[in-house]
Amino acid sequence: MKHNGQTWIFEAHPVILAGTAVGGKKEKEGPLRADFDYFFADDRAGCDTFEKGETALLQKACDLIFSKHEIADNKVDFFLAGDLMNQITSSSFVARKLAAPYLGVFAACASAMEGLALSALMIEAGAAELILTASVSNNKSAERQFRYPTEYGVQKPDSCHTTATAAGAVLVGKNDKGITVDSATVGKVIDLGVSDPLDMGSAMAPAAADTIKKHFSERNMDIDSYDYIITGDLGNIGQALLFDLLSKSGMIFNKCKFLDCGKLLYNTSQNVFSGGSGCGCIASVVYGHFLGKMQRGEIKKILAVGTGALLSPVSSKQGESIPAVAHAVALERRC
Amino acid sequence: MKHNGQTWIFEAHPVILAGTAVGGKKEKEGPLRADFDYFFADDRAGCDTFEKGETALLQKACDLIFSKHEIADNKVDFFLAGDLMNQITSSSFVARKLAAPYLGVFAACASAMEGLALSALMIEAGAAELILTASVSNNKSAERQFRYPTEYGVQKPDSCHTTATAAGAVLVGKNDKGITVDSATVGKVIDLGVSDPLDMGSAMAPAAADTIKKHFSERNMDIDSYDYIITGDLGNIGQALLFDLLSKSGMIFNKCKFLDCGKLLYNTSQNVFSGGSGCGCIASVVYGHFLGKMQRGEIKKILAVGTGALLSPVSSKQGESIPAVAHAVALERRC
Repeated sequence: MKHNGQTWIFEAHPVILAGTAVGGKKEKEGPLRADFDYFFADDRAGCDTFEKGETALLQKACDLIFSKHEIADNKVDFFLAGDLMNQITSSSFVARKLAAPYLGVFAACASAMEGLALSALMIEAGAAELILTASVSNNKSAERQFRYPTEYGVQKPDSCHTTATAAGAVLVGKNDKGITVDSATVGKVIDLGVSDPLDMGSAMAPAAADTIKKHFSERNMDIDSYDYIITGDLGNIGQALLFDLLSKSGMIFNKCKFLDCGKLLYNTSQNVFSGGSGCGCIASVVYGHFLGKMQRGEIKKILAVGTGALLSPVSSKQGESIPAVAHAVALERRC
Repeated sequence: MKHNGQTWIFEAHPVILAGTAVGGKKEKEGPLRADFDYFFADDRAGCDTFEKGETALLQKACDLIFSKHEIADNKVDFFLAGDLMNQITSSSFVARKLAAPYLGVFAACASAMEGLALSALMIEAGAAELILTASVSNNKSAERQFRYPTEYGVQKPDSCHTTATAAGAVLVGKNDKGITVDSATVGKVIDLGVSDPLDMGSAMAPAAADTIKKHFSERNMDIDSYDYIITGDLGNIGQALLFDLLSKSGMIFNKCKFLDCGKLLYNTSQNVFSGGSGCGCIASVVYGHFLGKMQRGEIKKILAVGTGALLSPVSSKQGESIPAVAHAVALERRC
């Protein structure tokens, strides 16, 4: 492999062998319904707490992988996962059940892309043959951990996001053809001073812009090299700011090239404010919707840009602004 | 590189170019005083909150690296870090200031070893030339997040640990000689059903035993290959259980080969119950004390086994037992 600055360029063809997406009730009512493998009827996913429900979502996404791609004893070499729960417990509890060597990752809502980038690196380096990497979020456990229990009925501004109840998982291995992980750009932490935790799109857009610009300059490619540049969960407000920032930096682009998982996951009638968010947002939309499109040959090459707001309720209450990071992974269908 | 099961064997000589250890008041009063680079006088480290103090500890450990190993513009290719704060904010806020591409890791108190293993892998793979990896904990911010504010004066059982106010950082690069990262064993999550968050030594010992056994079998080495096997923070109770588990598995060993950072960091008169713990415990003791011993040629080869309890206050209150993980990194002095 090569690296140029913060971009890794893979040459040994790490590929996504299979992907799964699992959702909840609201995701089932959304426009991407057909791209999910399984829906739970409620945010507890049949468990007695929302947090255990979040673990169940991630577990389901991981279990379903093995029905799509057969492996002896369902054994993978490593499991890489991360989530929004304090101490990423959802990931760790699934790791306990999988009994695979486990590397916990954290990049807030960009965790899925950090996991995918590191998995591709491990395959490329010969550190593994088969890796499962996944991420999850649950609307209700995120609400009560980061904001208020939903039972309070606290009113929200239009700038806020709706955490997706969703999980996505992929199996990463090596192959000459298939959905190849072409390159990955690890993002820097950018903080332009946004301090409102109910406007995370604005906090994350500068990080997304920075990583996207770095990716294209370090790959020496232009924006038309990809069918789509897909951000994680910038939402309406964050995406508009991303366009502004990219334009001001001199980048010329067609806005239609840019899609945002948080905007795609729900209908506008679903009351999701600025859009969907959470670790499970990009994980389910890229590993469900876009992976499906690539496998069917409808699109050939995408850049998936996970966006994470690296705050905690404590840091916000202590007056800190919101640092953000964006990790980009380029996927290409090779026949 | 090669991998055998869950063990990575590095062949391109990733090395630790420099290491730092930073502590607080209690650590300054302990027996390893001479091995620290800097002490803060209190747990706020000059800041207005304990959490900001934790960030300041990590920042100091990272800043001091550049006084030990000169780098143009203090620029590293990547920064890998993790900590115990919710959403690993201490690491992310330092990443914001460092302005290096950032990968957040989480393995609770084993985070430093996860960061070191991944850094070595990245150097080995050609994904980077220079990586800074670090970890931190702060007694007071951990107490109020995981247990009770210390002002409550809640009594504790002898089985509990004392979170270290400490940080450790290392610069990882490539060189033919120096303190080489020889291999790393990524641990599985093991949970034998211990559910008492005030007895984390017992929760973590089975994970340590599993990773140590795997390391020796996958490396086809015996315990005498190392000067010491150094666990992170098993403490008195966890270390005794580790010895039991290793003996029962048929391993023959001299107990003097095993050291525990949590036991080494404080004097028995310092009222630390079962011993020190926290992400900063192994980070400061290995990157300060043991790295110093290796650099001075007093010891040649160690296996550092980070041990992490993957619980959260929420998971414990919801009746979950405590999953644990241990990641081992082998270091060798090459002249």
